[in-house]
Amino acid sequence: MSDGFALDPRLAADTHTVGELPLSRALLMDDARYPWLVLVPRIAGACELVDLDAAAQSQLLAEISVACRALQSLYAPHKLNVAALGNVVEQLHVHIVARNTGDAAWPAPVWGRGEPHHYAREESDERIAALRRALEL
Amino acid sequence: MSDGFALDPRLAADTHTVGELPLSRALLMDDARYPWLVLVPRIAGACELVDLDAAAQSQLLAEISVACRALQSLYAPHKLNVAALGNVVEQLHVHIVARNTGDAAWPAPVWGRGEPHHYAREESDERIAALRRALEL
Repeated sequence: MSDGFALDPRLAADTHTVGELPLSRALLMDDARYPWLVLVPRIAGACELVDLDAAAQSQLLAEISVACRALQSLYAPHKLNVAALGNVVEQLHVHIVARNTGDAAWPAPVWGRGEPHHYAREESDERIAALRRALEL
Repeated sequence: MSDGFALDPRLAADTHTVGELPLSRALLMDDARYPWLVLVPRIAGACELVDLDAAAQSQLLAEISVACRALQSLYAPHKLNVAALGNVVEQLHVHIVARNTGDAAWPAPVWGRGEPHHYAREESDERIAALRRALEL
């Protein structure tokens, strides 16, 4: 199902690659203010959840759950935010963000709030390694 | 699974009831700027998607899909926004918002952007009737 799939260049520019889940590419948003994963199903042309067939929807849900549990186990957030928006980048992608009271945008959503704090190389390497272990990659 | 479930009073205050899906209560956000459904699984104490067991997660996904298709069929939006945030109201609830280029918040997310435009009674009655038909309620 990955025939013709190519990651949107804006998603590529804003993230680090974590690894490949069975359906989705897992990305780390390059914003150290929040532990923030993005899952991108490797299905060319998908923009909406309902563009996926039932089997792919179920697999994506399973991967969202795995990502939620990974963020919970690593960062014990107060709340998870899970969202498929796509107003700017239409390629279907699901944000899973670990939120804490008092974080940079709390209690507002994270999108469009201030400038991202980019990871230093060793910080992103460390976070990606921890996420790969938690995602069993 | 609805034992002990009670709709959060802030959700109740901000919405009109559309009807009951097998797992979730379907609500219309009282903001005429966007066709905006909220699904609330009738499971007491659920705050995160991963608080639901696998069967309930699958059912919620099916109901999200039904809600997405209802909004697409009625309003032909440019994009759907699907999100479980819960930073303010912790009770698990999923927003499904029909977005159009040029709407009041476009391309930003809808939360916390300006004041809601409350429906006149006949407007909400009409929208709820259309949504009930599209949701087969």
